[in-house]
Amino acid sequence: MGPSSKSNSVRTKSHSKNPKAIVLFSGGLDSTTCLYQAIQDGYSPIALSFDYNQKHKQELKSAKKITKLLDIPHLIQKLNPEFFQGSSLTEKKIKVPKNSLGHSEIPNTYVPGRNILFLSFGVSLAEGIGAQRLYIGVNALDYSGYPDCRPEFVKAYSDAVRIGTKTGSEGHPLEICTPLQFLDKKEIVLLGSKLGVPFSMTHSCYDPVGGKPCGKCDSCLLRKKGFQEAGVPEK
Amino acid sequence: MGPSSKSNSVRTKSHSKNPKAIVLFSGGLDSTTCLYQAIQDGYSPIALSFDYNQKHKQELKSAKKITKLLDIPHLIQKLNPEFFQGSSLTEKKIKVPKNSLGHSEIPNTYVPGRNILFLSFGVSLAEGIGAQRLYIGVNALDYSGYPDCRPEFVKAYSDAVRIGTKTGSEGHPLEICTPLQFLDKKEIVLLGSKLGVPFSMTHSCYDPVGGKPCGKCDSCLLRKKGFQEAGVPEK
Repeated sequence: MGPSSKSNSVRTKSHSKNPKAIVLFSGGLDSTTCLYQAIQDGYSPIALSFDYNQKHKQELKSAKKITKLLDIPHLIQKLNPEFFQGSSLTEKKIKVPKNSLGHSEIPNTYVPGRNILFLSFGVSLAEGIGAQRLYIGVNALDYSGYPDCRPEFVKAYSDAVRIGTKTGSEGHPLEICTPLQFLDKKEIVLLGSKLGVPFSMTHSCYDPVGGKPCGKCDSCLLRKKGFQEAGVPEK
Repeated sequence: MGPSSKSNSVRTKSHSKNPKAIVLFSGGLDSTTCLYQAIQDGYSPIALSFDYNQKHKQELKSAKKITKLLDIPHLIQKLNPEFFQGSSLTEKKIKVPKNSLGHSEIPNTYVPGRNILFLSFGVSLAEGIGAQRLYIGVNALDYSGYPDCRPEFVKAYSDAVRIGTKTGSEGHPLEICTPLQFLDKKEIVLLGSKLGVPFSMTHSCYDPVGGKPCGKCDSCLLRKKGFQEAGVPEK
């Protein structure tokens, strides 16, 4: 992995000769595993994170530590507070549900259009700098039922990108990669373990209390389940 | 049209009882016509603009004047400079082509993934605040051949949004409206004229010189053609 050139105003350059990939990167278990998978796949990753007034903003600290450890370029885009309204992850007045895994409805932790928007940043960046792949750590087994994590969404979105970009319309579409799509949480932990993911540096909790994971939100429960079933220690 | 509540930290509220619509709004001829069409259609619009280091950033001044005139909420999202690389609209070292209308290739004024990203902001905002429509002023007749202005792109992108959002997956998809899609520039001018668009306040030039339109870029040439053929004065 070549050193990142953070002094450059456009911090997307790397000295690596590997092809570039954009990785949507929250600093959580899934997206960190995805990032390590991109490296394993032979790509020089550029990590892309978002500051969207999320209650679990401390995930960005994890993201920064991990990209520093890997010495890779890391972009953080700030979004105006008007976006992503109506979610318990962004609005103080809406409480993050606890001990409610297994609900049949889409929970209020759903963030309107989040993956559509994050992927679209990835598309713009990828096409502009000539990256071949865009990684996103969605999965549709141990998840909260979000519509923008399902394979049919990724397929439809990929079609739109193929049709709506210059590279796509010229026959060289950006490849949207979802290596975790059909893994359950146990399998994600086992994959991360194999790839050397520094689990203790990742942050998953939606609603941290005094900087510590709450242990009761969907994200904490799914994470705990994954480590327990995989028989892998979190630290 | 109710007064906008710009003092509110979330400037998306209006006192109008009309249903809400998001309008992607650059301050140019097309998107201004689109904005006026949204009002004509009975919607209370929220205008959404972007500061992306464009050479024609002065379009934002036009956008602000027009939303002030209409007294409607107006959001401007700033993008990091890393996005939208490789375009003559954003990079100083790449010149905006002049007198080159009618080229068969996609010109270097193409901005990677621009409409995908702008639409995605619109989707997030619309779903979060319960807006029913998202307007974008794309057209595919008198245009520069951008793949993200074509009806097949809008169709594919709408499909992805229907599948990937909560409202869409529950059977109430956001309607992406493209009232200019099949109009030529003459017809856009005639429509704008009928709707009362303040043409002199709009800005179209890609490469203004000392604040004045260059008169030679694709955008200036298409605009001039539209007004000439419509027999409507620009001012």
